[in-house]
Formats: sequence, structure tokens, C-alpha cells
Amino acid sequence: MTKALVIASGGMDSATLAWYYHSLGYDLHMVGFNYGQRHAKELEFLKKQADTLKADLTIVQMDFMKDLLKGSSLTDDQIEVPDGHYREETMRITVVPNRNAIMLSIAVGIAVANKADVVGTGIHGGDHYIYPDCRPSFFEPFAEAMKQATVGHSVEGFKLEAPFVEIGKDDIAEYGNRLGVDYSLTWSCYKGGEIHCGSCGTCFERREAFALAGVNDPTEYLNTPHFERPN
Amino acid sequence: MTKALVIASGGMDSATLAWYYHSLGYDLHMVGFNYGQRHAKELEFLKKQADTLKADLTIVQMDFMKDLLKGSSLTDDQIEVPDGHYREETMRITVVPNRNAIMLSIAVGIAVANKADVVGTGIHGGDHYIYPDCRPSFFEPFAEAMKQATVGHSVEGFKLEAPFVEIGKDDIAEYGNRLGVDYSLTWSCYKGGEIHCGSCGTCFERREAFALAGVNDPTEYLNTPHFERPN
Repeated sequence: MTKALVIASGGMDSATLAWYYHSLGYDLHMVGFNYGQRHAKELEFLKKQADTLKADLTIVQMDFMKDLLKGSSLTDDQIEVPDGHYREETMRITVVPNRNAIMLSIAVGIAVANKADVVGTGIHGGDHYIYPDCRPSFFEPFAEAMKQATVGHSVEGFKLEAPFVEIGKDDIAEYGNRLGVDYSLTWSCYKGGEIHCGSCGTCFERREAFALAGVNDPTEYLNTPHFERPN
Repeated sequence: MTKALVIASGGMDSATLAWYYHSLGYDLHMVGFNYGQRHAKELEFLKKQADTLKADLTIVQMDFMKDLLKGSSLTDDQIEVPDGHYREETMRITVVPNRNAIMLSIAVGIAVANKADVVGTGIHGGDHYIYPDCRPSFFEPFAEAMKQATVGHSVEGFKLEAPFVEIGKDDIAEYGNRLGVDYSLTWSCYKGGEIHCGSCGTCFERREAFALAGVNDPTEYLNTPHFERPN
């Protein structure tokens, strides 16, 4: 049995990735991160996904990130999460510096300790604009570094994969729908209310992905703003 | 004023690196990691170094590593730290999987949040044999990935540096001696007793470095085994 470790947020991208490895017959280990983000609610949804897929689940407690990495609205209660489309300039303040590399590095450590064959991350083309650490220009040298860092300690042929790095979130929704992903078990909203707010950047992207993919959106939203395709 | 963040362990390599950036006139920020290692004593020595250099000091609490990364004698109380030279096969069990990449990634995040110009790590040629994540084959792609990950968020020209990656620990001791490093403020022993044990792998390397460099060793050791150059 080969083992895949999936870096999972509770959102729809990493859920689709987990279903993908599951469909390939991998033994599945889902790893989430609690770094003091407002949307810790996503971790509850992650647990539902892991239960459904009979996957091992590890939540890494990284409260230190809240204290150390100042200036991001995701971890600083004094900065308001902006509304609006994710691609807008104002969304830049939702970036936790180097978050992706930190989570990937820890996941690789866990993978090596648990003899996993592959680590998968759900970074995708739609993240490129805002997040430099979700671009192939970051991912390719990073994946090479991880391979080199674990020589002699990891499973032979161990690698870090980003199957969605070249496609968009709507492509992921369409692919996931074919795989049978239960998107009602996923959470996107950065505001962390009872139901999805419907108006923050991630809710915007979530609605847009389902709409563009022509896939039924099972999400209940608090606000139902007029949906417009971005220019 | 340009700012350097130094990844610091309390040991002689990172101390020399801190003195190096200090000698170049950088504003200094030292960052240590507490990952449940037995030799937390090194962090006390790190504080003494930071006080001496008037550097900012951050200790990142990473207790989660103790729970997640099993099978290393550095974090597992049930495995005994082996005696003997660091280069021996038995020392491999002192490896925490991917430790270096994890610490480097977090340090880069802190550096970006604090507008540092450079992040320095004290990895050196003597580490290559045991630790794949201290080799240039790891460091070069990793440094490139960090540059790419922080585009648009870091200080212009930001980079990750490993000035000692091609030299040995004895070269570091010789260079540090010329820089005026106070090595009595450094700690190496993995056993974490009152004074250096003198017989664990890191004590062995420490003694060897001073001896090969012809530099006075200010360390008080519990054991004083016959010193031999390795073949």
C-alpha cells in the first residue's frame, strides 16, 4: 500500500486533492494546520472529510504564527477581513508571510516520519496572482529542495506534488464533481460565521468556481450578492 | 540600516554567523527554536549572545515537533543519545526529519514580517555527511524558492544566505576567533547537563574544531577522552 499525505485546509481544493489520491488507492493521511486563523471552523470540516475518506488526520498546532507573523488580517484580530473579489489589491493583506513554505516543510517532515510516498498540496492557478508562494516559480525549486532534504530518510522515490498548480478553481470543482467529492463537507469563508458569509474573497471565489464549472453549489450563504464574472 | 535575521541555536556556528553580520554593521535579529529538544540549555546561551550583541531575540515555540516527528533521539526521551563521533552511522538517529527546512521557512516568514534584508543560516560543510538538508544540493533550490515565495512582500533584494556552507567547523572557529566571538557564550552538548559532557557527537565536533583551528577552547568538559583525529 502506498501512502499519500495531503495538506488539507477543509476547503474545496484540498478536499478534491484528498478524493483524488483516495481514488488512486492511496492510504490517506490528511494534515491540517491551526495557526490562529479566524476560520478555524474549516478544521471541523476537515475532520468530516477525513471521517468520510477513512483517512488519518493530524492537526498541527502552530499558535506561534499568530504572534510572530504580524500584519496579516488572517491572524491579526485588529485588522478587518476585506470584502470583495480575491484578486483585488486589498486582499494582499490576507497573506501570512511564507505560510505555504512553512506548512509544506512541516508536512514533509511528518511524511518522512510516517513513511509516506508522496505529499500533495492543492495550490492552483487561481492563487498565483496574490500568493507568490503558490506559483510554479516557487513550487518547482521548493519540490526539488524537499527531495534533496530527505535523501536517505524518505521512501525511495518520495516526492512533493501539486497536481492542480496549472489549473483554475473552476476546473477543480468540475473534476471533483466527477470524482464524487461531497462539497457540503468543505468550508471556505474567512469570516468563520455559522454559515458562509457569501461576500468575502474566498466566498466569492467559491461561488464563482461552482458557477463557472456548471456544478451544483451545495453551500448556504448568508449574503447573496449579484454574481458577476470578473473582467 | 540593513537588518539581518540569524537562525541561531546557541552553538558556535550560528554565534559566529551573528558576529559576522554584526561586524558588517547589520541591525541584528536572532531567532531560536524550541522544538522540545533535550538541549534546551542552548537557548540560555543564545540569550547571552543576543544580550552581548544587543540583538533582538525571538524564540519560536514548536512543541508540536516533539509529537509529530517520531523516531529521533533529539526529541524522543525513550531513545538514548549515542556517544561517539558525529560522522558515525549511529548518529543518523539524531536527525529530526526536515528540521532545517522547517526552521528556515519560519525564519523567512518572520524576516518578511519584520522587513529584514537577509536571513542567514550557519549550516556548514561538516554537516553534509549526516544531514542532507545542510548540503548545497538542498540549499540552492531552497534559497531560490524562498526568494520566489516572498516576491512583492519582502525587502527588495531579500535573500537567504549560508556563508559557511562550503567550509568546515574548524574554519568557522578560526574565523570566529579573528572576529572576536566569545565562545564561552556558546553551547553544543546534546545531553544538556550542567557542563558539556565532552563525549557526545557534538562535544566531539566542538573539541575537534577548536583543536584543528589552533584556537583556545574555553569549554569545561565533564569527560576528557583521548582526542584523536578521525581517519
